[in-house]
Amino acid sequence: MMRNSLIILLLSVFNPVSYAQDIALVIHGGSGNIYRENLSDSLEGLYREKLYEALISGYEILLDGGTSQEAVKKAINIMEDSPLFNAGKGAVFTNAGTNEMDASIMDGSTLNAGAVAGVKQIKNPINAAIDVMNYSPHVMMTGDGAEAFAKMRGLEIVDASYFYTERRHMQLMQIKERESTDQGNQFIKNHRYKFGTVGAVALDKSGNMVAGTSTGGMTNKKYGRVGDSPIIGAGTYANNKTCGISATGHGEYFIRGVVAYDISALMEYTGLSIQEAADLVIHEKLAELGGVGGVIGLDAKGNVMMSFNSNGMFRGFIKQKGNPQIFIFKE
Amino acid sequence: MMRNSLIILLLSVFNPVSYAQDIALVIHGGSGNIYRENLSDSLEGLYREKLYEALISGYEILLDGGTSQEAVKKAINIMEDSPLFNAGKGAVFTNAGTNEMDASIMDGSTLNAGAVAGVKQIKNPINAAIDVMNYSPHVMMTGDGAEAFAKMRGLEIVDASYFYTERRHMQLMQIKERESTDQGNQFIKNHRYKFGTVGAVALDKSGNMVAGTSTGGMTNKKYGRVGDSPIIGAGTYANNKTCGISATGHGEYFIRGVVAYDISALMEYTGLSIQEAADLVIHEKLAELGGVGGVIGLDAKGNVMMSFNSNGMFRGFIKQKGNPQIFIFKE
Repeated sequence: MMRNSLIILLLSVFNPVSYAQDIALVIHGGSGNIYRENLSDSLEGLYREKLYEALISGYEILLDGGTSQEAVKKAINIMEDSPLFNAGKGAVFTNAGTNEMDASIMDGSTLNAGAVAGVKQIKNPINAAIDVMNYSPHVMMTGDGAEAFAKMRGLEIVDASYFYTERRHMQLMQIKERESTDQGNQFIKNHRYKFGTVGAVALDKSGNMVAGTSTGGMTNKKYGRVGDSPIIGAGTYANNKTCGISATGHGEYFIRGVVAYDISALMEYTGLSIQEAADLVIHEKLAELGGVGGVIGLDAKGNVMMSFNSNGMFRGFIKQKGNPQIFIFKE
Repeated sequence: MMRNSLIILLLSVFNPVSYAQDIALVIHGGSGNIYRENLSDSLEGLYREKLYEALISGYEILLDGGTSQEAVKKAINIMEDSPLFNAGKGAVFTNAGTNEMDASIMDGSTLNAGAVAGVKQIKNPINAAIDVMNYSPHVMMTGDGAEAFAKMRGLEIVDASYFYTERRHMQLMQIKERESTDQGNQFIKNHRYKFGTVGAVALDKSGNMVAGTSTGGMTNKKYGRVGDSPIIGAGTYANNKTCGISATGHGEYFIRGVVAYDISALMEYTGLSIQEAADLVIHEKLAELGGVGGVIGLDAKGNVMMSFNSNGMFRGFIKQKGNPQIFIFKE
């Protein structure tokens, strides 16, 4: 014991960097049927620019000694405020022609968590999830109640018309026109899971992990459908001991697979690395269920994981002294 | 390989019982501060009678070759229809003086699942969760949307006044009167988590496991608060490979601990028995977070688990050729 402690002490004196806490940030802007041939160069450029902005803005907070929560909030807010992603401003339309958004956040140091589901007027749903976590005894709030809480907290409330974008409305119209035909069902299948949810996982200087996810859900959704994004353990999970995870994809399968927590459980109980655990969950367990999508995550050492079984996932990461790396398609 | 198959064949011929599937049913009617001195003999008798009725009715379905889903539905319906339990007819009141109920179900053979949250007019919320699972592509529906789906499915809809019970309304009034005082906060703490949620887990002749949970949530809840009962992985989980679980308690902690799935993950990944896994999750992990409550469950062989860290839990089980066993307090 003494000898081992001495060796560790010597190592840390002569090689201090290996014991310093790495900071890291990983984000996604949705997974789905994202083919190179369907994404024009100019649109691809817009996605890359916005992902870059989200990464750099969140990372600067971490570099300045800010918290993982602040970095996750910043990165997600930038994607929520962009019409490119299915969250906040770019949220898809429900069958009723409204926008109903979900979001969640989890703090890996306390295992505290917050979530909102089915909110229609909160400009940045992730901010409401953060306030549920920090300023209420609850974890999950839904619908009008969640909006009343957000108003009480002084969060930015917008008219429902703020969430109208022509592109998303056209997607709803296309799906509605075609939903009664066989060809239409194939079209819906191809388009529904495209350009999804946004999420971020950050590790700060204190070694604290936070994961967050925000979404507009599924185009043409009915009956107050809620997917995995506001479900702790399914769409979002964070635990300083293991990992932080944010998911994107066909939410029903992620709920049934308890995907985000399953990655953590595999790491904790079987010793798999974050990449091994995520690949097992996404490429084997989720795929066997028939689920399509992906996850991003960090482990306690700041190792980055991005795993998906869809055709593409808007994603990127930045690590200590590293340059931001952005990806869209399978590489 | 051939030799092993032969041995198994011989074993099954000479000892057929060891390969027969045991059927089993375990139920709960809520956990919390349930002290012997606070429960009159006559009230205790009413609880025991109703738990007995739920157990026997569900078990008869299993004996007749019915499915786990039918048995779980029957047992939960009986408790939902009784004013004794915080589900259906006996649901507690929200701060706004309404009743908002949640329920979920999971099928361990398919990992299919269904849930409703924040419903106000569905007589038996578990039936809506079952229909979400069986007749929709979704897992979770909330609020008015979930009710529209239930109506479309032809489920029994009742006027909100059906859920009015004097006892629950008085509990709301008592809490509201006292919530602004320190003494009141202690009172609320003692009373809020009493007489909770109902749930059932069944294993049928085919070896199929189903778990379900139904609740009125937390007295005086605000802001569309949703607890663990409709969250797959937190309040309900089932997987034929491992176990079926239904939880009851302070839901926020069960969500943060991903309690129901964690028991399954510990069994699958570390080889713990259902009792060992549940005791670790309830008495160590949940208790460390500060969470109070309990779980019931069955493993694939029909072993019964009932674990709680509260003062009591209304609970009972019945196994092949066994008599129903009912418990309320710590034994």
